[in-house]
Amino acid sequence: MLVVMQALATEEQVRAVCQKIESLGYRAHSMPGAQRTAIGITGNQGEVEPGALEEMPGVQEVIRVTKAYKLVSRDTKPDNTIIKFPGSAVTIGGRDLAIIAGPCGIESRDQAFTIAERVARAGAQFFRGGAYKPRTSPYSFQGLGEEGLKIMAEIRDRFGLLIVTEAVDYESLALVDQYADVIQIGARNMQNFSLLKRAGRAHKPVLLKRGISATLEEFLMAAEYIMSEGNYNIVLCERGVRTFADHTRNTLDLSIVPAVQRLSHLPILVDPSHGTGKRNKVTPLSRAAVAVGADGLIVEVHNDPDRALSDGMQSLFPDQFDALMAQVRQIAAVLGRGVPASNHVRAEATSSAD
Amino acid sequence: MLVVMQALATEEQVRAVCQKIESLGYRAHSMPGAQRTAIGITGNQGEVEPGALEEMPGVQEVIRVTKAYKLVSRDTKPDNTIIKFPGSAVTIGGRDLAIIAGPCGIESRDQAFTIAERVARAGAQFFRGGAYKPRTSPYSFQGLGEEGLKIMAEIRDRFGLLIVTEAVDYESLALVDQYADVIQIGARNMQNFSLLKRAGRAHKPVLLKRGISATLEEFLMAAEYIMSEGNYNIVLCERGVRTFADHTRNTLDLSIVPAVQRLSHLPILVDPSHGTGKRNKVTPLSRAAVAVGADGLIVEVHNDPDRALSDGMQSLFPDQFDALMAQVRQIAAVLGRGVPASNHVRAEATSSAD
Amino acid sequence: MLVVMQALATEEQVRAVCQKIESLGYRAHSMPGAQRTAIGITGNQGEVEPGALEEMPGVQEVIRVTKAYKLVSRDTKPDNTIIKFPGSAVTIGGRDLAIIAGPCGIESRDQAFTIAERVARAGAQFFRGGAYKPRTSPYSFQGLGEEGLKIMAEIRDRFGLLIVTEAVDYESLALVDQYADVIQIGARNMQNFSLLKRAGRAHKPVLLKRGISATLEEFLMAAEYIMSEGNYNIVLCERGVRTFADHTRNTLDLSIVPAVQRLSHLPILVDPSHGTGKRNKVTPLSRAAVAVGADGLIVEVHNDPDRALSDGMQSLFPDQFDALMAQVRQIAAVLGRGVPASNHVRAEATSSAD
Amino acid sequence: MLVVMQALATEEQVRAVCQKIESLGYRAHSMPGAQRTAIGITGNQGEVEPGALEEMPGVQEVIRVTKAYKLVSRDTKPDNTIIKFPGSAVTIGGRDLAIIAGPCGIESRDQAFTIAERVARAGAQFFRGGAYKPRTSPYSFQGLGEEGLKIMAEIRDRFGLLIVTEAVDYESLALVDQYADVIQIGARNMQNFSLLKRAGRAHKPVLLKRGISATLEEFLMAAEYIMSEGNYNIVLCERGVRTFADHTRNTLDLSIVPAVQRLSHLPILVDPSHGTGKRNKVTPLSRAAVAVGADGLIVEVHNDPDRALSDGMQSLFPDQFDALMAQVRQIAAVLGRGVPASNHVRAEATSSAD
Repeated sequence: MLVVMQALATEEQVRAVCQKIESLGYRAHSMPGAQRTAIGITGNQGEVEPGALEEMPGVQEVIRVTKAYKLVSRDTKPDNTIIKFPGSAVTIGGRDLAIIAGPCGIESRDQAFTIAERVARAGAQFFRGGAYKPRTSPYSFQGLGEEGLKIMAEIRDRFGLLIVTEAVDYESLALVDQYADVIQIGARNMQNFSLLKRAGRAHKPVLLKRGISATLEEFLMAAEYIMSEGNYNIVLCERGVRTFADHTRNTLDLSIVPAVQRLSHLPILVDPSHGTGKRNKVTPLSRAAVAVGADGLIVEVHNDPDRALSDGMQSLFPDQFDALMAQVRQIAAVLGRGVPASNHVRAEATSSAD
Repeated sequence: MLVVMQALATEEQVRAVCQKIESLGYRAHSMPGAQRTAIGITGNQGEVEPGALEEMPGVQEVIRVTKAYKLVSRDTKPDNTIIKFPGSAVTIGGRDLAIIAGPCGIESRDQAFTIAERVARAGAQFFRGGAYKPRTSPYSFQGLGEEGLKIMAEIRDRFGLLIVTEAVDYESLALVDQYADVIQIGARNMQNFSLLKRAGRAHKPVLLKRGISATLEEFLMAAEYIMSEGNYNIVLCERGVRTFADHTRNTLDLSIVPAVQRLSHLPILVDPSHGTGKRNKVTPLSRAAVAVGADGLIVEVHNDPDRALSDGMQSLFPDQFDALMAQVRQIAAVLGRGVPASNHVRAEATSSAD
Repeated sequence: MLVVMQALATEEQVRAVCQKIESLGYRAHSMPGAQRTAIGITGNQGEVEPGALEEMPGVQEVIRVTKAYKLVSRDTKPDNTIIKFPGSAVTIGGRDLAIIAGPCGIESRDQAFTIAERVARAGAQFFRGGAYKPRTSPYSFQGLGEEGLKIMAEIRDRFGLLIVTEAVDYESLALVDQYADVIQIGARNMQNFSLLKRAGRAHKPVLLKRGISATLEEFLMAAEYIMSEGNYNIVLCERGVRTFADHTRNTLDLSIVPAVQRLSHLPILVDPSHGTGKRNKVTPLSRAAVAVGADGLIVEVHNDPDRALSDGMQSLFPDQFDALMAQVRQIAAVLGRGVPASNHVRAEATSSAD
Repeated sequence: MLVVMQALATEEQVRAVCQKIESLGYRAHSMPGAQRTAIGITGNQGEVEPGALEEMPGVQEVIRVTKAYKLVSRDTKPDNTIIKFPGSAVTIGGRDLAIIAGPCGIESRDQAFTIAERVARAGAQFFRGGAYKPRTSPYSFQGLGEEGLKIMAEIRDRFGLLIVTEAVDYESLALVDQYADVIQIGARNMQNFSLLKRAGRAHKPVLLKRGISATLEEFLMAAEYIMSEGNYNIVLCERGVRTFADHTRNTLDLSIVPAVQRLSHLPILVDPSHGTGKRNKVTPLSRAAVAVGADGLIVEVHNDPDRALSDGMQSLFPDQFDALMAQVRQIAAVLGRGVPASNHVRAEATSSAD
């Protein structure tokens, strides 16, 4: 159910409707939009009786939502969600593309700083690096844990990069929520519903990667799990699906970008590194991702990929990342979108503005 | 690395080798077999130096295991794993097939008892029912939780059925470990490595379902995660994979049964209910699963499937389950395997033996 | 459109209805059944006006067929199609399973005779062997062509085996139609509609293999192409589909057997050799195919598989085929179906009956 | 085997080597390049003895080609193949992208002319339209046949568009070879090897579409079939593969574009119409295809898509095609490639040049 408020409804009226919904034993999700506010109603116990709500002051109409996903739906919130970060002008889902770059895993302070310096200089606004690595084998490098998070927190301070890193269970999620700026839920956990609900109670935005064989509906429903717990700051991410094709590690499904944008107000990024698994495919598919209309990229960059403890095969050299940024900047411009110039330049601009 | 002991090695010699391995900072996994004991060595920090171990009393040879999976491998343990249950003659992986049946979810005490009575009478040794349901939508029935576990514990007492039920996170796993006889890890959590490791520290056997797009290697590696933490009682389960085919909900991949049996000592069951998603396909595919050589079946049975809160479409009526049991019993006999007669008969046999 | 005749309608009435249909510019397909005859109507130019037909003597009703497939549908012909061979008691789709065995390709007269002798002795009623091989590479062995067909014709005379072999274009189809007993259309040509229509004008039954990524509907529509040209003797064959799974060459989709049997009256076989691509999987999956309810098997057997010019990896040794036959014979019995004893025995039985 | 000639080898020396190869019973394929000529050797009967060739005048070296594909390989011909058309400045594989547009099927002269006029004006150099339609159902519109070809020949004369149309068997291929400028082999026939070989003996370039579940190697091998018969003018085309994803009709696999470009010298186009099956996805995926580096597009355009006899759902309105062209023109420029301005402008430019 969805309560659509009148364009001129007051905040107080919205609050009253929310209270009424909660008093009936449901959960109310207020979704302010450019024109009007909509209030999503969720809860396990079947249908709400619309009568009581329809008559309240400020309510325009009460509509039944027949799609399985409600809060993530564009029917509920027609305007694009733009995710903001306190104390930063950076957004995800706004005019500028969000560029997230960094190594697959944080291996050492030196490695992380070396790479962070380069991706910041190239214009990335976000640094990625795994502290908790979900690996197919229990005997593979599993990440540095909290030590890795601390290194990334230092990187934020040093380079002004926002930090994106994966959480794999309640414990790591609590720590990531504390140290990082965006909590990543990886493809293997896209239907780990307990973790999704926990992420829905976290304070930071969530970057939700599409499961390796998830349908569009399952993908949106996973986001719905997070939103249903009250965290509305979600970024979707296509990272390739599993098919018979063997010339890439996964098959990058760029068509899901416009498909998501039709159905949902949430921003969607593309990960061409996992999406192809091959260094030589990352740049062309990054261009394609921007051209298809994605809201940004998440790209693996490593200063010494041949010795990377994970995913070296798909990591770009820093110089390749520079070249990638130059190319996607031009393509973004064709779509009326921006890719930030290097932080270096930004830093100068900022200081000259002081 | 794998230490193969001599056929006549004493328990003390095995223990001494294990202690030596642990003293070197690795983990030792003793795998007794019909002929000899093998000791698997796991640990993150690279290769063990074989010299120190090769010279110990009772050691026949130290071999490098090149496969990604070690403990689950038949190279490590040539004999089939047979899982036993304290105070019960029932096994999984032995001569008799293990038949697990029950509703998708526990909906009420009445529903559960009605179904349990019928599946017990038909010969099932295990009762399944979800207390924690991983559902695609946050608004779907999510299970009764601990209340459901208590109902199942009563069913064990009343009907002598062993209980199989799914855990979805640490909290539910601890409770399932306490109330049930087998902890199920569902397909969506097959690569939830934190949960796998937690299951590896549980006391009960683990039924691990194949992920919807898991390769054979990923499936065995997920079991390896559990074993690497010390729980060696694992049952694998094929439940269908996701393909383009649309005449069934999933495509049941029966070829994985002989494939697993070549590579691993672990038993493997088949779930034709999720594997097909259609009631009319469950019986023929159950016959096929037994004919291909599976160690048992897990089948959804519901007394009123049209009103089931989940998965009604794929649940058998109790009478259909009776007929299924009659058919698989004959096919099992062709392969030299047994399917138990009804508990009723067993109950009589037991009492007359008293 | 489908004209259902009254149970007591005379042949003359059936003929009159067919003539009327043809006079209206459509094509009539008479489908005699156990209870009554149905007459399928096909043709490109839209809907038939039912009025004129409904009033004709012997007509019970005229019904609109909404499924895309008409002639292959069980709605049109409720009874199973049983394919007969002139001068032979062998059938496909009857009580006895049809067992087709032989090498992937005919390599020489010696090789073919050696294998034929063994499969005949083991009980196969059909010999398969490729004279025209569709190979991924233009530089691979492409078959012996007409010379191969002549060798197979000799085998029929010598061993009493019926001959199944693939046609790949008009020219080879004409020759196969002349020399063999069953015309195989391979998976790669399942949607080669020109070839299907040509096969619909041939005199021999057609064995149609499922395409490597064909849906059930596409599979039945391919059969419909053949039937729409007037050849109603079609045998379907599941041979594995392409998925992400890599432990077998293809993923054998046994669930399509009961799915076809619900929707269509046509018999369906299973090819576990192509369906798995691995010798050690052929026997377990053959058992499963019979248990699921298939009407027969098509199995590759080679006397020297390591030197086979194609598909040696998936060919059974003759002794393995003997063992397979013994196992499937027992499983077939559970389903109330027969697998012929060896031709040797049959030969004796026949001669003693003389 | 590949004979690499010296940079300064004369035409006569090349000819002599080819004659020698043919005299040995093989087939010689001369591949002139910017630096030097290579001569591919094909033939069924195993290995060539290199000695005789290595000593011939002008030969630099004889190398063994271990890849399954030889003539299509970039090892054989390092320079991109650029396909030219007699009497036209248009190319495929050159600096300018090739834009092929038109209806799925030719339905009438009026429909075809209306659409052709619009796509020509928008800048397309090629007109596509099916005269022979491979349809899943035998009862669907199968195309106008030769009448359709004649209409397209008129369109070439009237609008200066080159004609691309599909052939489905020998008979239609002969006619398409006569009337059209490019012979299309559709996805369903990608492994119809008889048809491929026939296309290898045709006079016109061949547009080969990737099969719906073809691997990269199978795709290149299909092209190899055509080249091995002597037709070296081949254009590859990605048109989506079959996966579990259901938000598009097929999953467009753009990563195959850079993958093909690494391995082969052949140009590759993308078909976003079949690749997505949805009108609203065609433009974003067209942008992505150009950004990934494709050599052109093949797009379905229809003046009245809701009444199209086939594929209306995925056809663009002419106005949408105009907008698409404007967008891809800008993206092509970023990659240093051109998209022709409208024919109208070209026509003017041409006349003013006179």
